[in-house]
Amino acid sequence: MSIKVTGTPQTHGTSSPVEEAVLAAAAAAKAAQPALARLTRDRKDAVLLAMADALVARAEEIVAANALDLAAADDAGMEAGLRDRLLLDPARVAAIAQQLRDTAALPDPVGEVERGSLLRNGLELRQVRVPIGVVGMVYEARPNVTVDAAGLALKSGSAVVLRGGSAALHSNTALIAVLRDVLQAQDLPADLVVGIDQHGREGVGVLMTARGLVDVLIPRGGAGLIARVVEGSTVPVIETGTGNTHVFVDASADLEQAVEIIENAKTQRIGVCNALETLLVHRGIAERALPVIAARLAADGVALHADEASRGILEASGTIARVSPATPADWETEYLSLDLAVKVVEDLDEALAHIRTYSTGHTESILTRDLESQRRFLAEVDSAVVMANASTRFSDGGEFGFGAEIGISTQKLHARGPMGLPELTTTKWIVVGQGHVRP
Amino acid sequence: MSIKVTGTPQTHGTSSPVEEAVLAAAAAAKAAQPALARLTRDRKDAVLLAMADALVARAEEIVAANALDLAAADDAGMEAGLRDRLLLDPARVAAIAQQLRDTAALPDPVGEVERGSLLRNGLELRQVRVPIGVVGMVYEARPNVTVDAAGLALKSGSAVVLRGGSAALHSNTALIAVLRDVLQAQDLPADLVVGIDQHGREGVGVLMTARGLVDVLIPRGGAGLIARVVEGSTVPVIETGTGNTHVFVDASADLEQAVEIIENAKTQRIGVCNALETLLVHRGIAERALPVIAARLAADGVALHADEASRGILEASGTIARVSPATPADWETEYLSLDLAVKVVEDLDEALAHIRTYSTGHTESILTRDLESQRRFLAEVDSAVVMANASTRFSDGGEFGFGAEIGISTQKLHARGPMGLPELTTTKWIVVGQGHVRP
Repeated sequence: MSIKVTGTPQTHGTSSPVEEAVLAAAAAAKAAQPALARLTRDRKDAVLLAMADALVARAEEIVAANALDLAAADDAGMEAGLRDRLLLDPARVAAIAQQLRDTAALPDPVGEVERGSLLRNGLELRQVRVPIGVVGMVYEARPNVTVDAAGLALKSGSAVVLRGGSAALHSNTALIAVLRDVLQAQDLPADLVVGIDQHGREGVGVLMTARGLVDVLIPRGGAGLIARVVEGSTVPVIETGTGNTHVFVDASADLEQAVEIIENAKTQRIGVCNALETLLVHRGIAERALPVIAARLAADGVALHADEASRGILEASGTIARVSPATPADWETEYLSLDLAVKVVEDLDEALAHIRTYSTGHTESILTRDLESQRRFLAEVDSAVVMANASTRFSDGGEFGFGAEIGISTQKLHARGPMGLPELTTTKWIVVGQGHVRP
Repeated sequence: MSIKVTGTPQTHGTSSPVEEAVLAAAAAAKAAQPALARLTRDRKDAVLLAMADALVARAEEIVAANALDLAAADDAGMEAGLRDRLLLDPARVAAIAQQLRDTAALPDPVGEVERGSLLRNGLELRQVRVPIGVVGMVYEARPNVTVDAAGLALKSGSAVVLRGGSAALHSNTALIAVLRDVLQAQDLPADLVVGIDQHGREGVGVLMTARGLVDVLIPRGGAGLIARVVEGSTVPVIETGTGNTHVFVDASADLEQAVEIIENAKTQRIGVCNALETLLVHRGIAERALPVIAARLAADGVALHADEASRGILEASGTIARVSPATPADWETEYLSLDLAVKVVEDLDEALAHIRTYSTGHTESILTRDLESQRRFLAEVDSAVVMANASTRFSDGGEFGFGAEIGISTQKLHARGPMGLPELTTTKWIVVGQGHVRP
């Protein structure tokens, strides 16, 4: 005889006030969610549009709350880039509101019939897409993510528990207050959107163990944040983002195209997970290709971390500006900066072996004119997105036509690659009989 | 600058010999898997059929190894049911071989194109089904699962690490030796199938932390085993099995059908996760229905754990054989025996609330002739499988037409409900361009 109590998270012994508060918040979100699950798309879209209007109407209040966060950030000497991501002004609030309108315009995945059949005994079988339940989002001090995540969760029928980084506490509190006021005005439970920023790091720890209350945790942010959530969570996690992305220039590559793609993949936007980090060059084209590529990248301000073979070629050709020797650590590094690791490989097999060892499974691309090289690369590279003759920057939900992107999953379970709204849902099986019993 | 070393599991400080051995086994499986990923369906099926032949040819050796496990089990005073699941004879070995032939006959999910489009910029986009990589299976002392799991993993292109319970150590070792010999004879790496039974419980603990080497862990067995793996694993887990299954008899139910379905759901096979465990009866039909149901179930030897209201009705009608008072624990209990909890509810809302509180999210069924009751039940019950007017025993991969079943997932990520071969795979995105760069 086995006993299982459901809906009860595993707490370990005595509970702290933060533990009680966070579990209560998650339980409130879980209790609120069925009301959302019953809404039609029209009702959900109306809620999102009302939220957009309310954000614009109350922009002054939101910007004032943000000013408190900015003042604290300035006192703490926050780095300029981080401060910019934290800053809200009326134009940015309007842009955040527009994101909600864009989400409202997306198709609703809930209710889609994925598969269905009439079984030989007459049972009607359907697999339908349903909300996942309660989504936990853990991210960094970017107030726009607060609204974006809430909008995507609500559109997909899920309640959301938001933890957005204590540096954005006042901003997030103000934004969440607006969203909750709209929910109440629309006769929906405010607890469809709950924030737990006030409970700090301890709160994140509790959220990660709220099995039975939170159905999935999605970390959005840097590698450190993601690793912490993946390793510490007993709630299922969708791992996103880390991209140690490779481009392999095959011997048969079109050199002119290759230079354009490599420059685009490295410099079109840096600091993003689909930017190029390691360039592998086939020995058969290295002497011809490397000097041209290096010259173009040097003009873009890219620093090359080059292995011995590529340094030899670059030195012989005189294109040694911004070239330094690669160390083993370079092969493992997601620079997120104007840096690029470069290595000459003997052949496709060595390129595949290098990628197998160092890739984070995000995105890799081959530049080639050879059918067999393309076929093998696309088949054998085990990454979420594999490409031929295209910039890795296309590895993106927007580019794939998803409309919205929750993140790019680098894990193999549930969702792999860019995630759109359907990836925020699950399915259930519906079986309809007429008195069927199993023989 | 962020650094990530891939392919390296997170070990914590010094490593033990068991840790080294299990991680080496998982690493060997990971290294072997690409050879399998490249095989056509024809080659994979040929391997499975050769394995089936080899098992039959070497049945004597397998049965002899099993005799050692049985002797140890008898010394330890193993319970008869468990001993029967452990026992192998030539007929059972032949049945295990037949399972492999059945798996060979299933369609191969690898290579299926799930979605695809031509993007507006001319990029060709395809989402294709690919092997998941390395599957870890943790199960109890049932040697047939060893071969079944290995066959399903190989068919879906994955290597497999097997941990099957120390009571079956000799049997599993003999079975795995046969499978590995066939792999080698077919010029494939033997490490596509590795067993770690010899490393005991400590080995399971190591396997659960082998992130980067093992892509998914699937526990098959009792609730205790599953809970241990779900809570302790940093490798992604697919939770299977626990079924605290409900049937709700609506006021409008066809009573004759209801009796047949309830009897079938409770008694057609006990000890399985889709068997009925709690019966909820609408007050509007309880006086008419409960005596008939109780009489039928009493004849089947079912013991009822009845709430006060249903006891009152049963006493008044004189059908009180095998009826005892329900305690709160009964609502949480998956009996897996000839026991059934019974409760009278005021209406559909109370039934839904009871299910929301106590269901493990496996399977629930409504018996009704009312359209609105059926619609609400199917929409609002948040379980992997929801049914109307059918026995819960149909919640099964074989019944759904999947051919093979890895288990029934009660989680919402990746797979929900009965899992077939496609659920043992993942997808990747293939993007083919002609020199595309992102504007």
